[in-house]
Amino acid sequence: MAEIIRLGSVQKIPLEKVPRGRLDGINSGHQGVALEAGCYPYITYADILDLAEQYKEPPWILILDTMQDPQNLGTLLRTAEVVGVHGVLLPYRHSATITPAVVNASSGATEHLLITQGNLAQVIGLLKEAGLWIIGLDNRLEASLPEQVHLDGPLALVVGNEGQGMRSLVRKSCDQLLRIPMRGKVESLNASVAGSIALYMAMQARNNLEAQVKSIDSSLEN
Amino acid sequence: MAEIIRLGSVQKIPLEKVPRGRLDGINSGHQGVALEAGCYPYITYADILDLAEQYKEPPWILILDTMQDPQNLGTLLRTAEVVGVHGVLLPYRHSATITPAVVNASSGATEHLLITQGNLAQVIGLLKEAGLWIIGLDNRLEASLPEQVHLDGPLALVVGNEGQGMRSLVRKSCDQLLRIPMRGKVESLNASVAGSIALYMAMQARNNLEAQVKSIDSSLEN
Repeated sequence: MAEIIRLGSVQKIPLEKVPRGRLDGINSGHQGVALEAGCYPYITYADILDLAEQYKEPPWILILDTMQDPQNLGTLLRTAEVVGVHGVLLPYRHSATITPAVVNASSGATEHLLITQGNLAQVIGLLKEAGLWIIGLDNRLEASLPEQVHLDGPLALVVGNEGQGMRSLVRKSCDQLLRIPMRGKVESLNASVAGSIALYMAMQARNNLEAQVKSIDSSLEN
Repeated sequence: MAEIIRLGSVQKIPLEKVPRGRLDGINSGHQGVALEAGCYPYITYADILDLAEQYKEPPWILILDTMQDPQNLGTLLRTAEVVGVHGVLLPYRHSATITPAVVNASSGATEHLLITQGNLAQVIGLLKEAGLWIIGLDNRLEASLPEQVHLDGPLALVVGNEGQGMRSLVRKSCDQLLRIPMRGKVESLNASVAGSIALYMAMQARNNLEAQVKSIDSSLEN
């Protein structure tokens, strides 16, 4: 506690003594100290495209349509950071947002990710204009299997919510639907698992492309 | 309720009226009725090998070493059923077991899966004698990448727990360690996500093998 007070004064953060009850009201699991922070700093979709350009990579965005469960949202953001997406788009409404529970479930991935909020149909239109291919995860039979889908170009991957998948307007704005193959009696995967598997398929495709480009580069050099 | 009472008497299930408080004590989310059932019917590892033989497939077993969180356990069992493993092995102790919370999180997959309990090191020895290759999921750098591992033969895939991964004795009994590639700042995936991705990699490898065998079969027929 003494160290926290010392660091707080170094950083010029105002300190306040409060009755225990006020901390209990914020979070029952506290250890006698709390930090009041601002809201999660959402950015714009253009910042995400800028990051991709800076990395000289085809842009790769994850779009989450009305995901409800903070645990699922956090888990999926964790995978998104691990595979290296350039950013994440959430809808303004009907969705879990970046709360402390989500930050926890993401294992801190939210601190390293660019996350933006927007009207999905509208931003998807802008992403299409920027040359991104919009691929929605959907487990109906008419959707394409992974080997029929190109995941290695400029890509926005759309994952729907736990119950109904993507909303109809969002699904209609997709260029292609992707279905994860299944062979059991249970008819669907957990939403964060399904999204994570699709992200890994895209990572695999993009790594393969990178390896090919590198081998072409080195053969041109020779 | 009348329909439940009717079905209960058809099935000759004894009915009992109890004070509301007794149901509240079992599950606060009840709707005024509860069914007393037996324990989860665990089977033996030999039943799992028999099932594989019956399907004429190389055996495929998922081994979960001391997974703690019912949500993670249920989610991973759901994926295991969806990809078509022949069975699952859990340790006798230090692990979540098949409780109602796990059944729920598995979306009912526990009802379609063969699940056995055992001393992991001992059963792993027996599985090796039966010709299975034991591959453990581990994210240390000396572990092999997916393209360096054969996932298409008789296989037991071992997934460790959320905090420490596999216990040391279990890790040492593995024939090979598999590492899921990562490129972000967060250093690990959620345990159920990591296990699910490895299961999908194995499914992919096994489907490819099946497709090759089929194409050889049909070229022999021609």
